[in-house]
Amino acid sequence: MPEPPDFSNWSCPLPLRDYPSIVMGHGGGGKLSAELIEHLFLPAFRNDALENLGDASIVSLTGNRLAFSTDSFVVRPLFFPGGSIGDLAVNGTVNDLAVSGARPLYLSVGMILEEGFPIASLARIVDDMARAARTAGVQIVTGDTKVVEKGHGDGCYVNTAGVGVVSGTEEMGPKRAKAADAIIVSGTIGDHGMAIMSVREGLEFQTTIRSDTAALTGLIEQVLQAGGSSVHVMRDPTRGGVASSLNEIAAASNVGIVIEEKVMPVRSEVRSACELLGLDPVYVANEGKVLVFVAENRAPAVLEAMRAHPLGREAVMIGKVVDQHPGIVVAHTVIGASRVVPMQIGEQLPRIC
Amino acid sequence: MPEPPDFSNWSCPLPLRDYPSIVMGHGGGGKLSAELIEHLFLPAFRNDALENLGDASIVSLTGNRLAFSTDSFVVRPLFFPGGSIGDLAVNGTVNDLAVSGARPLYLSVGMILEEGFPIASLARIVDDMARAARTAGVQIVTGDTKVVEKGHGDGCYVNTAGVGVVSGTEEMGPKRAKAADAIIVSGTIGDHGMAIMSVREGLEFQTTIRSDTAALTGLIEQVLQAGGSSVHVMRDPTRGGVASSLNEIAAASNVGIVIEEKVMPVRSEVRSACELLGLDPVYVANEGKVLVFVAENRAPAVLEAMRAHPLGREAVMIGKVVDQHPGIVVAHTVIGASRVVPMQIGEQLPRIC
Repeated sequence: MPEPPDFSNWSCPLPLRDYPSIVMGHGGGGKLSAELIEHLFLPAFRNDALENLGDASIVSLTGNRLAFSTDSFVVRPLFFPGGSIGDLAVNGTVNDLAVSGARPLYLSVGMILEEGFPIASLARIVDDMARAARTAGVQIVTGDTKVVEKGHGDGCYVNTAGVGVVSGTEEMGPKRAKAADAIIVSGTIGDHGMAIMSVREGLEFQTTIRSDTAALTGLIEQVLQAGGSSVHVMRDPTRGGVASSLNEIAAASNVGIVIEEKVMPVRSEVRSACELLGLDPVYVANEGKVLVFVAENRAPAVLEAMRAHPLGREAVMIGKVVDQHPGIVVAHTVIGASRVVPMQIGEQLPRIC
Repeated sequence: MPEPPDFSNWSCPLPLRDYPSIVMGHGGGGKLSAELIEHLFLPAFRNDALENLGDASIVSLTGNRLAFSTDSFVVRPLFFPGGSIGDLAVNGTVNDLAVSGARPLYLSVGMILEEGFPIASLARIVDDMARAARTAGVQIVTGDTKVVEKGHGDGCYVNTAGVGVVSGTEEMGPKRAKAADAIIVSGTIGDHGMAIMSVREGLEFQTTIRSDTAALTGLIEQVLQAGGSSVHVMRDPTRGGVASSLNEIAAASNVGIVIEEKVMPVRSEVRSACELLGLDPVYVANEGKVLVFVAENRAPAVLEAMRAHPLGREAVMIGKVVDQHPGIVVAHTVIGASRVVPMQIGEQLPRIC
């Protein structure tokens, strides 16, 4: 491999220069991930669709609006309570399309397998993908498989990309949050991340926590039916958890956000496990939850519609958008104090998805 | 990771049972790759679009025909004479769309980076992707980056997926080759594979061979303008080279194929390097060439149109489709004999793209 170019000749702006090499946090969905996007990918690939920073990009295609999204999955271990990398890979991309207001239709699958990976494990992953696709109502229509030498991969990495159609004309996206919007989360937070941690090598602990991996398509249809154009932002709080998603939206919309810790739905097992590991559940990944920003007056109808859906039974209003402290997320704590909930810098839980 | 399921309980048909684990050849684009697709992916994901086995899948989307394709890139080294993994990742997916008769429009990019990978190298790859996208006339509109621990990746893996629009109503695809079709290749074969080998660790040799990586969009527009619905199949002969592509098409269309070795365009440096390594150029990967199957009477016009394009100046008719020996590719050799050109079993040159 030729020498990488001299840093001094390279036009990438600060603060990426502080890191001459990739660190785990660059994949964590926090501040370092955002820096890579802002200082490297956006300047290079510059276009409007990319700059909207949604979970999926909305592009125009022969008069229609197409949603297009991709995610790579490197979760460890590959099989965990409640799911596998196969479920995650399908549901993750389906959800990125759904929260963009699209009906997910077609997926591609790219596999990078390590020499020696058991075919039986691959069959199990593929089976999980097929089942998840059927449940989500999408078709896997194209794919590719590469194999790397033993020691150059980690069993199985999966990429999915997906396309869907955006109907309606409402504009929705992370830049559209407005003061007084209610913020609803569809159920308990942190389940996926803690399910993974409970079986992570060197860290196993006994628990009944299962990943919440699920396709949100049906739930989101209910949200849009009840909320229509009053739904301003939807996001599935995966890597970096609810806290990172809220920070991204606060920054993109230039609004303040206030959340109430005491109403945040957290399973007691998840809370205990977080305490054990010194983690804050608002930073822990979810794979079957959605955050909904909706105009105040339509919030009760949306909340009711969500609670009527199996995946939204525990939906609750966790906060609101405010005029003050633009770009900042503030939590009212259980003891009545206020604290800033910052974007995390790097990665709290590596390779969670 | 839970134990993989017992093989005896698993319904995957032969011949995959012969391989309990993934071997390099499962990613080689030959017979083993085909077996994975036939016996594992197709039964699991069953749908019409997937079963057409084209380079891209053609799906219907609100009344339009959408082409959708994906490829992962694990080439080693990342930078090589004539290009980089960045060029390959853009051109590869652009070409898969183009040979399906689509106008490529939008790409997604998924990166799996290894902890410690130099940011400067990443910047260079991203820069190559941006330039290749501009040249090909496509936009990179969505992306994702994951990071894995040092020792669990190989610097940088890139996945791209792409969408394009198929205009016109002609059906084209690997199942549409017909007896008496002329087979044209757009230029010299084996350049990409031998460029990679010339810089492959432990194998370096002095040569001026450069990868042919290029977006074929413009050339293919000329082919379709000149050939219209008489163009029955197009394919870019990447992994597994011309021989594997021809075998796939012979099998999918249930036709015989005869090629003439003496007219096969091979650079003298490529031929020498192949002799040195004991390789046959028809099995060596290309990243900027297209095979065109066109009705005999339109072949001269298509050939002329291709030669008028910078990427098709060395286009030549290399063979034809015949009624005999369905599914079999036969070469007339330089010395006047005939030999079967089989699908390769595994991988001649690992990690070539």
